[in-house]
Amino acid sequence: MKNKESYHMDLETFRQNGHAAVDWVVDYLKNIESYPVLSQVKPGDIRKQLPVCAPGQGESFEAMLKDVQEIVLPGITHWQSPGFFAFFPGNSSAPAILGEILSAGLSVQGMLWATSPACTEVETHVMDWLVKMLGLPEKFMSHTEGGGVIQHSASDATLCALLAARERVSNGEVNKKGGNGKLIAYTSAQAHSSIEKGCMIAGIGTENLRLIDVDENFRMRPEALDAQIQKDKADGLIPFFVCTCVGTTSSLALDPVAEMVRVTKKYGLWLHVDAAMAGTAAICPEFRFINEGVEDADSYTFNPHKWMFTNFDCNAFYVADRSALINALSILPEYLKNEATNAGAVFDYRDWHIPLGRRFRALKLWFVIRHYGVEGLQYHIRQHVDMAQQFKQWVIDSDAFELVVDNPLNLICFRHKDGDEVSESIMAEVNQSGEAYMTHTKLNGLYTIRMSIGQTRTEMRHVEKAWQLLKEASDRFG
Amino acid sequence: MKNKESYHMDLETFRQNGHAAVDWVVDYLKNIESYPVLSQVKPGDIRKQLPVCAPGQGESFEAMLKDVQEIVLPGITHWQSPGFFAFFPGNSSAPAILGEILSAGLSVQGMLWATSPACTEVETHVMDWLVKMLGLPEKFMSHTEGGGVIQHSASDATLCALLAARERVSNGEVNKKGGNGKLIAYTSAQAHSSIEKGCMIAGIGTENLRLIDVDENFRMRPEALDAQIQKDKADGLIPFFVCTCVGTTSSLALDPVAEMVRVTKKYGLWLHVDAAMAGTAAICPEFRFINEGVEDADSYTFNPHKWMFTNFDCNAFYVADRSALINALSILPEYLKNEATNAGAVFDYRDWHIPLGRRFRALKLWFVIRHYGVEGLQYHIRQHVDMAQQFKQWVIDSDAFELVVDNPLNLICFRHKDGDEVSESIMAEVNQSGEAYMTHTKLNGLYTIRMSIGQTRTEMRHVEKAWQLLKEASDRFG
Repeated sequence: MKNKESYHMDLETFRQNGHAAVDWVVDYLKNIESYPVLSQVKPGDIRKQLPVCAPGQGESFEAMLKDVQEIVLPGITHWQSPGFFAFFPGNSSAPAILGEILSAGLSVQGMLWATSPACTEVETHVMDWLVKMLGLPEKFMSHTEGGGVIQHSASDATLCALLAARERVSNGEVNKKGGNGKLIAYTSAQAHSSIEKGCMIAGIGTENLRLIDVDENFRMRPEALDAQIQKDKADGLIPFFVCTCVGTTSSLALDPVAEMVRVTKKYGLWLHVDAAMAGTAAICPEFRFINEGVEDADSYTFNPHKWMFTNFDCNAFYVADRSALINALSILPEYLKNEATNAGAVFDYRDWHIPLGRRFRALKLWFVIRHYGVEGLQYHIRQHVDMAQQFKQWVIDSDAFELVVDNPLNLICFRHKDGDEVSESIMAEVNQSGEAYMTHTKLNGLYTIRMSIGQTRTEMRHVEKAWQLLKEASDRFG
Repeated sequence: MKNKESYHMDLETFRQNGHAAVDWVVDYLKNIESYPVLSQVKPGDIRKQLPVCAPGQGESFEAMLKDVQEIVLPGITHWQSPGFFAFFPGNSSAPAILGEILSAGLSVQGMLWATSPACTEVETHVMDWLVKMLGLPEKFMSHTEGGGVIQHSASDATLCALLAARERVSNGEVNKKGGNGKLIAYTSAQAHSSIEKGCMIAGIGTENLRLIDVDENFRMRPEALDAQIQKDKADGLIPFFVCTCVGTTSSLALDPVAEMVRVTKKYGLWLHVDAAMAGTAAICPEFRFINEGVEDADSYTFNPHKWMFTNFDCNAFYVADRSALINALSILPEYLKNEATNAGAVFDYRDWHIPLGRRFRALKLWFVIRHYGVEGLQYHIRQHVDMAQQFKQWVIDSDAFELVVDNPLNLICFRHKDGDEVSESIMAEVNQSGEAYMTHTKLNGLYTIRMSIGQTRTEMRHVEKAWQLLKEASDRFG
């Protein structure tokens, strides 16, 4: 038998198309301010332009690129627009995209050290770099009993922390016999929905997740946590896990980790720190106060794919005791056995997370850190915080708007003084303009607009424009 | 405040570097046969070449590319080498890489329809295409009560199926109250380790996973399944979930799905079909027999990132009743509420899997299908199967080797007639040559070499070379 023909793209055509794809990306980023930040299409608008069936014969890359331009682009909400102030940023950068190109080209699957040693070792190495860059405790480094791993998302990381804690407290019994409905987890009433989702997935149950009361700055109250744990213990339940937030989703509230530690240590609970968004700030020494107490945490996570210029997906997850994590997740079937694994000389990252397979995601993270250097990352983080703090001052000085809660970093929560309906109309109007995109939350039951500043290309003029749009809308609705 | 400087890569430099990255990938693929398939480095070899600390100042992309070439490349096990016959393929292709480039450039996060409608709609559309392409039941299409979603891996997909089944049988009670230790899951004794891992994660417990006996072809025995379910029911336990394998990992054994269905229907159990590797074969009508019975399954998964030329990660997961899946995984906090979601007019894929965030992975899948067309995909799948069947015949005709089990697709399981030790030495020798890479399993307790043929660039000459290497090693060790 001989290959008489092939449907693969020949390499020189691939080279040309690859250049065209890069050019498309560069032009997209060059023109990004010309697109409405929030996509204006209606449900079904994209699908109705696509053929009902897959093509029988192959098509040209030109045809695909044309469809991306004409069909896909109107259906994009531009996370990389400097006018993106919604949710939290999912920022990217040129070095991260270059890392993605090489990673896609190599297309290795690093489930085991042996299936591409560089995929594992570069990851371990860069995760160690980050520990020092963020001033995190040494116990999260790979030469200790801890270590770091790239996960898909903070949801995955938190789930893994929950599983490690579950197996530590049950001595491996839940993995064997299943849940018993008695394990109790704790988090702030302001915590991210992923904690609740994790408790569902892990068979803990949402009724066994205690949402602890917060103070006037939306920070979890340590004394409320302590009291709830005592109550649960008195009821014969088994407290085992606390997730504390360094930067909540609604308002970027910073739980007092050091005070949480005092409680979790008293009862021997696993303390997980979710710094998904705010964690990156610790690259700057002046913001490192957010990590006070983290030296006593059992696990920690933040997302370079949010505010550290690294394309999604790239979550950084650390544990102080990697054996607890591996015990919770490891299975070694015959077909995965190999010399390096048998010798115990290597990390096999498949045992550190939910999936078996994994991409070479460390490459983009390595490139981002090397391109910017620590000083470049610090510079841009400071710029974002400075812009947010300037915006905050405008809100404070404004007659129309008011601050809902103070925050020292890059998320400003505010509302119109005339209340929920006006605030909602103003935000809808700004988003409809296409020049900026913000999202809302509710704080103390009140409709609150979130101005989240962390997009790679956001400059002061974009923040000024957003403020101008808000004021204009206020003049109409307020 | 003004941006006095910026550490971002300017767009024209990015364009040049992007072209250089594409050129690097093209050259890598051009020269891929010159690298040893299995990396020859020792643990720590890569890390010791990297600086202990992150750089304070930024570095050039040239420096990074040089390090990729000199430090990373020796630590790569080349999944894209035509001599890669290990595990299962994780094949990629030019259109998939082009899709990754555009996806990285757009860098949208499609957690909600609203956060990039095209990310959701192209995905739904292409997942519908695949249903028809593979001859899967219409109930998996989005216009019915079912639907498809791209997951990170088959491990994630199986876990989600398990969770949907768990909540269906418990009427949402496990999500609320946690596991009860009474739910029983079933799979083949030859099933992938991800089923066991899923049972650990979901709080089912490995002792509550029954590994059902297989026949001489390593196919799950329906009567053994039936008997075990009856026994468990008699013991007051709650059978709820069966994972059946269309292509096991060790030997690509094809469970008789239609017979499994008869059992699961009798007891009202959720039937999940794991066709991670073999599923792609159904693109060819002559191999569609593997899906007999799938029309009655509750969920189904296969990996375009294994054998369908689509870069990892890209798992395809289907459910017949999407509300069961969404009920198991949905949480809607205030900060994610939006008009389209509230109206119920759209899919928000965050509710279909573990993570909240998601990349625009449909782009590469769309490009692969459009580049090859159905006929191109069929052609290459048939080539792979033909080569494997030719290899099988050589084994059958050989004096030195013997077939362990017959398989009609692209995985050939064989061993040396002189037993385990000789088989193991032969495989080690072949892998050490750098020209081919195979992995092993144990079948009936015997060391078995797996010849897995599905790499994008594998041609007959590569299979012939592997066979020659095996014979030479056999002459030395046998």
